[in-house]
Amino acid sequence: MFNTLCVIGVGLIGGSVARTARVQNLAARIVGFGRDQDLANLQLAKQLGVIDEFYLDIAAAVAHADCVVIATPVATTAAVLGLLKPHWSAETVYTDVGSTKGSVLAAAEAVFGYVPDNLVPAHPIAGGEQSGVSAAVEGLFAHKRLIITPVAGTDAGALAKVQAFWQGLGSVVSLMDAQHHDSVLAATSHLPHVLAFALVDMLGHKDEQSEIFKYAAGGFKDFTRIASSDPTMWAAICTANKQEILPLIEQLRTELAKIHALLAADDYAQLFATFAYAQTARERFLEQFERPV
Amino acid sequence: MFNTLCVIGVGLIGGSVARTARVQNLAARIVGFGRDQDLANLQLAKQLGVIDEFYLDIAAAVAHADCVVIATPVATTAAVLGLLKPHWSAETVYTDVGSTKGSVLAAAEAVFGYVPDNLVPAHPIAGGEQSGVSAAVEGLFAHKRLIITPVAGTDAGALAKVQAFWQGLGSVVSLMDAQHHDSVLAATSHLPHVLAFALVDMLGHKDEQSEIFKYAAGGFKDFTRIASSDPTMWAAICTANKQEILPLIEQLRTELAKIHALLAADDYAQLFATFAYAQTARERFLEQFERPV
Repeated sequence: MFNTLCVIGVGLIGGSVARTARVQNLAARIVGFGRDQDLANLQLAKQLGVIDEFYLDIAAAVAHADCVVIATPVATTAAVLGLLKPHWSAETVYTDVGSTKGSVLAAAEAVFGYVPDNLVPAHPIAGGEQSGVSAAVEGLFAHKRLIITPVAGTDAGALAKVQAFWQGLGSVVSLMDAQHHDSVLAATSHLPHVLAFALVDMLGHKDEQSEIFKYAAGGFKDFTRIASSDPTMWAAICTANKQEILPLIEQLRTELAKIHALLAADDYAQLFATFAYAQTARERFLEQFERPV
Repeated sequence: MFNTLCVIGVGLIGGSVARTARVQNLAARIVGFGRDQDLANLQLAKQLGVIDEFYLDIAAAVAHADCVVIATPVATTAAVLGLLKPHWSAETVYTDVGSTKGSVLAAAEAVFGYVPDNLVPAHPIAGGEQSGVSAAVEGLFAHKRLIITPVAGTDAGALAKVQAFWQGLGSVVSLMDAQHHDSVLAATSHLPHVLAFALVDMLGHKDEQSEIFKYAAGGFKDFTRIASSDPTMWAAICTANKQEILPLIEQLRTELAKIHALLAADDYAQLFATFAYAQTARERFLEQFERPV
């Protein structure tokens, strides 16, 4: 599909893009780019065969690349676009993997004054709480949804190439506008992460005073898995999408106040109805999760 | 260990007690008791070999039993103790599996006027979101914690027998008072369940308005697993332990207000510090979860 694929940021996601692109034969050559402090990770990526070569110099990294994947944390998108700008090529397609898409469009506008027509923002709904190239796996995107958020000026040819690339990686691709993406993901991903961090922050302090974690069970383990996610990445995602997340936090506080009131009033019937509705709603989610297409 | 083990309520937990007791040779004969509406489940339990016989009549069920395990939802404990009272035997030991222990002591006091010295309340910290005997498995309690909450008058011999029984089922047994148990479990189990139900109740209504669940990922799946738990059981647990749960819901609302304020004020440093503290605290939990003894 491509002669040279350049991955900016060879971590869990970027590394998995590279590994899968290799196996699926989507690029003849795969190179990585990182900063000086990423040297050890890039050396490991090359040693593991995830990439063929790496560069700490952006000009060398993107030379001859016909596809560039920006796979760095969302807070760095503007800086990365700033680095790419002097070398931006109309012959190349650009995509990213950021968890917030309004922020990517804003970064492009800040750097270029507009969104380049060959920048096709994307968000693979896949990942894990681990980070770094050692966590990267082939097949991470298989049967997982990926959302592309084109703008009015997006070039149809670039869109088609980027869509085909992500489908080649195994993704089930949907298109929607960036604002809708950010609203949906705030609910299904960002709010749950905030909640998991909030709960474990609160209980962690209790655990320091008197041991409680030793009596926590498997349900607690699953419920708090996402609180093991990278705090740098998540503080950045929350900041980038705060307009959507803030009202959801307020709605959840209202929901908790509702349950508090039901429980305080011994309104068993309504408490049961709330829990039963949630149980049914989760089954609806599970059915869709297990049959994503 | 016992000649006849009687399990009151042959569901996920009661059935797993029976299956494991059989494999571990803890009882020569295992019988089950249920209500008329439990007939199909009891027939299935017998058919699966989980129990040797079942009874819908309490007198027949507990005749010759030297150990009775009450494995019905916490809301039914007083009713079950009321059934057992006319047949209560000083030669028998009694234990239960309720997720709240203050409520079990209160039920005993309501029925007997005191806590019988051979009733040894217990709570196996194990389970799952499934229910019924078909979900019961041998080994459910292996390497899982179990908390026994004796009272001042608990008979030492009964306590020793019940403790040995649960250890024989594979549990790692701790002793603590019922109030402390209820406080710890409110934090590590009841509050997370309330939170999962609250989140999925809120998002389920959003999903009805515009599809959001189809874009939810594996993190959401794990985070909401406990929202698939039995709403009857959980509405009862919350009611039984509301004195502990209500203040925790308030504390969590305060915690969410704190994160809301940090995000609204773009206080990245404190937001990061909160998330990073939570990440570290979860690692502390995981280490203990993986090495429970």
